[in-house]
Amino acid sequence: MVEYRADPAAVAAFLPPGVEPAPDPGAAAAIFAHWHWRSESEEEADDPERNQFNEFLILLACTAEGRPMARCPYAWVDGAIPMARGWIQGMPKQFGAVHLTHPKAVGRTGPHLVTGGVFHGIASQYGARIVKAGVTLGGRAAEPPALHTVPLVHTRHFPAWVPSDKPMSQLVASEVVDVEFGEIWEGEASLHFADDLPGDLASLAPVQVGGGFVFSYAETLCHGKALSRVRQSRDRAEVVAS
Amino acid sequence: MVEYRADPAAVAAFLPPGVEPAPDPGAAAAIFAHWHWRSESEEEADDPERNQFNEFLILLACTAEGRPMARCPYAWVDGAIPMARGWIQGMPKQFGAVHLTHPKAVGRTGPHLVTGGVFHGIASQYGARIVKAGVTLGGRAAEPPALHTVPLVHTRHFPAWVPSDKPMSQLVASEVVDVEFGEIWEGEASLHFADDLPGDLASLAPVQVGGGFVFSYAETLCHGKALSRVRQSRDRAEVVAS
Amino acid sequence: MVEYRADPAAVAAFLPPGVEPAPDPGAAAAIFAHWHWRSESEEEADDPERNQFNEFLILLACTAEGRPMARCPYAWVDGAIPMARGWIQGMPKQFGAVHLTHPKAVGRTGPHLVTGGVFHGIASQYGARIVKAGVTLGGRAAEPPALHTVPLVHTRHFPAWVPSDKPMSQLVASEVVDVEFGEIWEGEASLHFADDLPGDLASLAPVQVGGGFVFSYAETLCHGKALSRVRQSRDRAEVVAS
Amino acid sequence: MVEYRADPAAVAAFLPPGVEPAPDPGAAAAIFAHWHWRSESEEEADDPERNQFNEFLILLACTAEGRPMARCPYAWVDGAIPMARGWIQGMPKQFGAVHLTHPKAVGRTGPHLVTGGVFHGIASQYGARIVKAGVTLGGRAAEPPALHTVPLVHTRHFPAWVPSDKPMSQLVASEVVDVEFGEIWEGEASLHFADDLPGDLASLAPVQVGGGFVFSYAETLCHGKALSRVRQSRDRAEVVAS
Repeated sequence: MVEYRADPAAVAAFLPPGVEPAPDPGAAAAIFAHWHWRSESEEEADDPERNQFNEFLILLACTAEGRPMARCPYAWVDGAIPMARGWIQGMPKQFGAVHLTHPKAVGRTGPHLVTGGVFHGIASQYGARIVKAGVTLGGRAAEPPALHTVPLVHTRHFPAWVPSDKPMSQLVASEVVDVEFGEIWEGEASLHFADDLPGDLASLAPVQVGGGFVFSYAETLCHGKALSRVRQSRDRAEVVAS
Repeated sequence: MVEYRADPAAVAAFLPPGVEPAPDPGAAAAIFAHWHWRSESEEEADDPERNQFNEFLILLACTAEGRPMARCPYAWVDGAIPMARGWIQGMPKQFGAVHLTHPKAVGRTGPHLVTGGVFHGIASQYGARIVKAGVTLGGRAAEPPALHTVPLVHTRHFPAWVPSDKPMSQLVASEVVDVEFGEIWEGEASLHFADDLPGDLASLAPVQVGGGFVFSYAETLCHGKALSRVRQSRDRAEVVAS
Repeated sequence: MVEYRADPAAVAAFLPPGVEPAPDPGAAAAIFAHWHWRSESEEEADDPERNQFNEFLILLACTAEGRPMARCPYAWVDGAIPMARGWIQGMPKQFGAVHLTHPKAVGRTGPHLVTGGVFHGIASQYGARIVKAGVTLGGRAAEPPALHTVPLVHTRHFPAWVPSDKPMSQLVASEVVDVEFGEIWEGEASLHFADDLPGDLASLAPVQVGGGFVFSYAETLCHGKALSRVRQSRDRAEVVAS
Repeated sequence: MVEYRADPAAVAAFLPPGVEPAPDPGAAAAIFAHWHWRSESEEEADDPERNQFNEFLILLACTAEGRPMARCPYAWVDGAIPMARGWIQGMPKQFGAVHLTHPKAVGRTGPHLVTGGVFHGIASQYGARIVKAGVTLGGRAAEPPALHTVPLVHTRHFPAWVPSDKPMSQLVASEVVDVEFGEIWEGEASLHFADDLPGDLASLAPVQVGGGFVFSYAETLCHGKALSRVRQSRDRAEVVAS
């Protein structure tokens, strides 16, 4: 995960009614993750082709219901099940090729989780590069990066197909429990967006690159909580100012 | 496309309220297709990685609103956009590896569209085979296969995520215009479902394999038309008996 | 296939001893092809995942043994069998994602083989774009494009692994029979190499784009014929000067 | 890695001249590995799509030059570079889809490297399953599994292409240095070959499944050492009997 700053105006353009800019309005993160998931039926439990996937996503700091949250404007995964699961939650997941370095316990090549270890992430879609990122571990961090500890606020969207119908659109926050962090390492980071990205994705390219983090993380994703879309600008401003 | 007969009881188990078995209740088809699509924005027009895909689907003969229609219990595509587009229409598309023989104009290897030409289709998911099919062209057919000429009746489904919500479920028929068939060839066919399929897919395996068809087809997919879920059993029975 | 002109000095740098620049020394072609192959055992005959593949390759006009030939400096295929088969012939095939437009017989979207039909090709490797090409059909051509009618001159290479051994390197021409062309269409073409290609590939980018061709082609690839590496500079020079 | 016993006659059929059955002639292993590699140029160092890959291979115990070695009759990797690198060494690597469970540091789903942790591997080719394996960790092992500590004896093969040439065939042992093992865990294992494998691969299916191992491993692969193909049966037998 690489913390970075995007253009605050570009970030604001991705926030729907009911979601406001954060006090620090350009804060963003680029996250590469390798996930192992388990359903209640466990029918995928013996198939590592199905129960593991890679993800790259962007998070934008924002405020909703008076609390710090994060908005995901773009995400790519390399499996169809996590893509569909994301849509049900309201994450705008697309299908892409995502690869990230796995830490190694021995040897001279794969990075170890020690000072100096170098980790990379790379993502592409339809044969065109989207992003490259790198982190060189400097040492242990006391806290996880801020954008990885706040709820995500998503818009569940399902288009209409019968002409007289309206699309479904529902603002929700994901509720998670059993959150666990492993060792958290931080260090210097690089983050490069490709040159020929579509316009609104290009608008989120870094204007400043912050620190990088490498860590293990686990959660149980329970369900969504509906958020009001009523814009409470004045109340929000007061909360933000407190 | 291979016409076949499935177990009528298995077929009936896939029909939702508002959809009845066909007069010929086990009629089914296994269809391999290579598609080229175009959106209104045409932003994908110069990218053959995006605007082409392969599909394998199963169609089951059924009746809805007193008319012959077809129900798609399973479909696989090799692209994320057609998968999502299928879900919006109500098709239960999954992600898979689908390959089919392209006709060739010259040479000794790729089949020509002439008597004796042999075409194959093959589909798999998560590294496990689903189905294999083959057609050896015998001659030109006067008509397209019946299941390729009727409307498809789908259930648009979007799960709930907030615990107090209900999932969306809407019975629709796809409305298409600009339907065009190229030369239609028919011949002897083979169709093999793999041995270790999940139960309800295995239940649709062929009990008898009919003829095979190879043809070009085009349509413009417009929108959906909502169907009533009210079961009109007696009316249907009368229609069926007529 | 798109004819183009590359920098003659860059082309010359790809020619091994025994192969000389062509009389027209920057002539080159960028070729997208969908192939259907058959082995003598025919064990792959019923599997379209195995017996079909896509290829993108570059050809450079050259002269060997006093005859016009073509040299392939780069090629990408999307299957492991054609990659290995290429290496045995001496083609430097790499693994990539290659897609090209298939002609369609009906409909408003996929191009027909008629004046105005638009065909595209696109190739990438490791999630990064290599090349995009397009052809808009203008009319029928009387002859196939020149670089598609000459023998290919390859270097069969197999590295040493035991330190005292020398790598194998053999200059060969491919011998093909049963060559067949279908209808040959030509028209205006576009050809774009990506910006961030490795240096020696970037050196082959077009300095001028010529015409484009769309056609079917078949051959039987028999075996190789060893060529002498003896450089016949004076004779060649005379040919070049004529 | 899962130790197993194959039919000794089937194993013997895979041993070339100069390689003899092991004292324990049916000993075999099925190995799933996730690799991170580095070349001398390090040009792939920042690209985890290129510098990591998965592999499934079978090893057969054998004897060459009077020493215990292992023979690899089949291997699959999911990258073209390791496939080519394998061929240069003499490993018969094919292209396949290979997935294996990565250990996790936290959470309830991905297995931890502790007693009870469950790891899986799965491999397929051309959309058809080859093998599934599983290991449930019982405890730490004192030693690495025997077949992972012996040299591999390969046949470097490069077919002829010019009719008068002979194929290249060279018996070599791989020389490795810098071998490192991380924690070695062992436990109960499962191993299933698919039903419809080609004949000589099916002949290597397990007749008895032994223990399973999960560990990290690193090596530097240097070069090959040529082995004599002269069969020294009597000497070998004496050595074996000692």
